[in-house]
Amino acid sequence: MPEFRKDPIIGRWVIVATERARRPSDFVPHSVSDEGTAESPCPFCEGKEDDTPPPEIFAIRNPGTKPGSPGWQVRVVPSVSPVLKIEGKIERHGRGIYDVINGVGAHEIIIETPQHIYNMADLPEEQIANSITAWIERMTDLGRDPRFKYAMLFKNYGLAAGSGKIRHAHSQLIAMPVNPIRLKDELVGSRQYFEYKERCIYCDIIKQEMDTGKRIVADIDGFIAFTPFASRFPFEMWVLPKKHGADFSSLPKDKRPDLARILKVVLTKLKKALVDPPYNIILHTAPFRMPKAGYWKTIDEDFHWHLEIMPRLTRVAGFEWGSGFYINPTPPEDAAKYLSEMEP
Amino acid sequence: MPEFRKDPIIGRWVIVATERARRPSDFVPHSVSDEGTAESPCPFCEGKEDDTPPPEIFAIRNPGTKPGSPGWQVRVVPSVSPVLKIEGKIERHGRGIYDVINGVGAHEIIIETPQHIYNMADLPEEQIANSITAWIERMTDLGRDPRFKYAMLFKNYGLAAGSGKIRHAHSQLIAMPVNPIRLKDELVGSRQYFEYKERCIYCDIIKQEMDTGKRIVADIDGFIAFTPFASRFPFEMWVLPKKHGADFSSLPKDKRPDLARILKVVLTKLKKALVDPPYNIILHTAPFRMPKAGYWKTIDEDFHWHLEIMPRLTRVAGFEWGSGFYINPTPPEDAAKYLSEMEP
Repeated sequence: MPEFRKDPIIGRWVIVATERARRPSDFVPHSVSDEGTAESPCPFCEGKEDDTPPPEIFAIRNPGTKPGSPGWQVRVVPSVSPVLKIEGKIERHGRGIYDVINGVGAHEIIIETPQHIYNMADLPEEQIANSITAWIERMTDLGRDPRFKYAMLFKNYGLAAGSGKIRHAHSQLIAMPVNPIRLKDELVGSRQYFEYKERCIYCDIIKQEMDTGKRIVADIDGFIAFTPFASRFPFEMWVLPKKHGADFSSLPKDKRPDLARILKVVLTKLKKALVDPPYNIILHTAPFRMPKAGYWKTIDEDFHWHLEIMPRLTRVAGFEWGSGFYINPTPPEDAAKYLSEMEP
Repeated sequence: MPEFRKDPIIGRWVIVATERARRPSDFVPHSVSDEGTAESPCPFCEGKEDDTPPPEIFAIRNPGTKPGSPGWQVRVVPSVSPVLKIEGKIERHGRGIYDVINGVGAHEIIIETPQHIYNMADLPEEQIANSITAWIERMTDLGRDPRFKYAMLFKNYGLAAGSGKIRHAHSQLIAMPVNPIRLKDELVGSRQYFEYKERCIYCDIIKQEMDTGKRIVADIDGFIAFTPFASRFPFEMWVLPKKHGADFSSLPKDKRPDLARILKVVLTKLKKALVDPPYNIILHTAPFRMPKAGYWKTIDEDFHWHLEIMPRLTRVAGFEWGSGFYINPTPPEDAAKYLSEMEP
């Protein structure tokens, strides 16, 4: 019998088709490895620093090397085609009944390796940890800009996931003067739960997932990866710290290698199980400056940062695209079983 | 300068990239016409009535012809691979902190023409009007089943829009015991607006769109089609009745040819402007049985049914997929200009 399952945080119902469940082999194979030739020469490779727009915003560099030159592990540069402009004041205005804010924001690219490697799954753990450091440094810095409310960190891997032609591991960070609506929905949902239970809903979810074990993909060094109960997409995964924390950028330095480890494990499992599928990763974290009073007074207690990993499997989403209503042909329990049994 | 634009109904912010605007020719051409061979023989063609699952749920038939035989204009049959089961009681239960409803519902296919034509744009107006009649008949009938709260009517055209291999015009109707979350968001948003203004937000939008004219694609016989101010997708369009109405199935018989006319016009424009692109159409209408008291007491006044038409253009959506945050590279004003200038 198929089921309607409710996302406990935002209340979205998803149809999970438990009977005609689709296994990894049922998806039209679409390997990012087969996506054709890369842009050549690759502007993200070491030695091609002049091919990215100046300035180098941040880098982890070998001692003695200069910004904009070789000798780095991770580099952050402005997007060559930014969706927002960094200069300008935030101006809110109406246009009849409509509301507009001018498009001020930052759009940065985090180049995650000096080598020409595309899938984060193929990076060494230390390199993923370097990327995490770059993410945190940049989010912390952008958070100081009073114009911005939120920085959205995401990764598009593969053309079908919205990536460009550059086949070199990178993520993107967009700082902006508004909060994305789904984040808002999560903040509201977790606050409602907290008001009722006086507990974090994500902490409760982690506890139940660990108790049942049915949807766990990896449980490593203080982090947990599982396929959510009301998964919208086949093989969707969430990665969370087991210790409560609303703000990703507060992740202590000594925990970053652990997050890198679990990311490496789950992305490798995904790559093997689904033959190098395209995917998106999106970070959900607390906004920069929530007033710690009134509506959001308990945000530190009630929200819990997490990464959402969404493989993009061909021809799964139909009307789901933009409708907010999903039919998931692979129960998350089955997905977790495949992924957890896959050797990392 | 790019802009953040707010959807006035649900409050979602969308980045509209006004500067590096993409024109129709900038999209990777992906014609549904090129999608390869159809399933053969087509089970939706006249004469192949035995190839669809029994029973014939509804049909507009020539006098003297029998159900399940040739001689029809529109036929409604059960889905061959239903996502829900029609038999059973709705049972809500908890699974720890999670909430589940068993997957009871109806999943019907509306075959929109006896001829082997795929795109609704290519059907004669009378045939589209017949489909509208079938939609209304089925929604009205399913609405009598006390188990269901909503029936989602949608069309997936083309593989990239989630369609199957059958290249024959059809739409789908899924009746279910819950409301889709985005519909809920719209109901809540339009009620809030009504509380504040004592007017329907959609009526106000229509008025402003007609005043400025910048986003109008078609304005025909009591219906209007425009590209919404905070369009998520390039060439997204909404079609609404100018006369207020919350419930699609209350559309009077004599207005159905008019709705068919505007649908034919806008789908033909879309086909020409974007070289037969894949698209989804989704109906947003009032749920079956909102209590006309308390929370929803004003639903008849504050909600306004509409069709959302979303072309699926290759490689546009990246992290937008499932994140609720959209970057639209084609301002709706530009899209409306292209579409309105296109000969229908």
